[in-house]
Amino acid sequence: MKICFATNNQNKLKEISEILGDQFELLSLESIGCFEELEETKDTLEGNSLQKAAYVHAKFNIPVFADDTGLEVNSLNGAPGVYSARYAGPERDSFNNMQKLLTALEDKTDRSARFRTVITYMENGQSFQFEGIVEGEIIKNMEGEGGFGYDPIFTPKGYDQTFGELSSEIKNQISHRKRAFDKLINFLKTKESKSA
Amino acid sequence: MKICFATNNQNKLKEISEILGDQFELLSLESIGCFEELEETKDTLEGNSLQKAAYVHAKFNIPVFADDTGLEVNSLNGAPGVYSARYAGPERDSFNNMQKLLTALEDKTDRSARFRTVITYMENGQSFQFEGIVEGEIIKNMEGEGGFGYDPIFTPKGYDQTFGELSSEIKNQISHRKRAFDKLINFLKTKESKSA
Repeated sequence: MKICFATNNQNKLKEISEILGDQFELLSLESIGCFEELEETKDTLEGNSLQKAAYVHAKFNIPVFADDTGLEVNSLNGAPGVYSARYAGPERDSFNNMQKLLTALEDKTDRSARFRTVITYMENGQSFQFEGIVEGEIIKNMEGEGGFGYDPIFTPKGYDQTFGELSSEIKNQISHRKRAFDKLINFLKTKESKSA
Repeated sequence: MKICFATNNQNKLKEISEILGDQFELLSLESIGCFEELEETKDTLEGNSLQKAAYVHAKFNIPVFADDTGLEVNSLNGAPGVYSARYAGPERDSFNNMQKLLTALEDKTDRSARFRTVITYMENGQSFQFEGIVEGEIIKNMEGEGGFGYDPIFTPKGYDQTFGELSSEIKNQISHRKRAFDKLINFLKTKESKSA
């Protein structure tokens, strides 16, 4: 089965390809002839994820999924959340975003946070959403050169290294995106076995 | 005297404001009513810097300067150079760019590099260019949460901390951008004293 992953983020495409193995054939936006920057103008992860999947599904009429991911920091009332990628400005620069978050947390004792991913899958005009969460903490300095986004300042619960330090194998076993994606895969397998 | 700094990069605007003090009044693109993303499609720092200054000068007819900056790594024949901001892809993400550079240098013994800035100043249809260079080394891991771009992996000659670790006061005394900018300031002061 071929599914398009509606993302302009090459890091996410690589991560999901690694998680997926050869269970399904993953199509990039470029490979289906979609060369646009997908809009994400909603104010929830659910809204943005649906917006991207729905746009590609309407235009190309193929099975497609999109994700949106936010880092929700408890002592900041869930910020940066859906604005995580644009936290320090429209440049979406992950280093600047981390700088801004470390500054915002300088005087906070509660540094607990969660990564939350919402995946929307669409086929035949129907949409389905799947959520994945990983709880953890924001550390005081960036550590590690792996991953992307806020990975170098986020330590998942039960580990003493950040997502920037942990190998991609470990990150891909426990991450928010992996957890949401597992639910999508289960859904697709169940559906296939029913229709078989 | 009022001068526009033709940049979409808020980090650069902040840095130059700090360097400038109250010698001249710095105008942002937004403050003159320019809300576009400036094109930089040339293949040299000189070309991009001129392209941005010339565009704003032609459209708004005010004194304006623009910079372009590259990190030139000797063992990579000067790469990423003019493509520094887009080294890891069109997202211009500084964390991804640093990751890619650290990987490219994994097996290199020569890790010497230079930041090079070219500033183009335009007034009354004339253009003037000023260069600033700082020599240094690419270290093996990111260190420090200050600065922007490649700052956490670049140690300037004579220092054992990166531009990400050094205070902005120190960075602004010795940086490539400061050196190019000093030349522009000298030029403007000399011109003013001549015309006075």
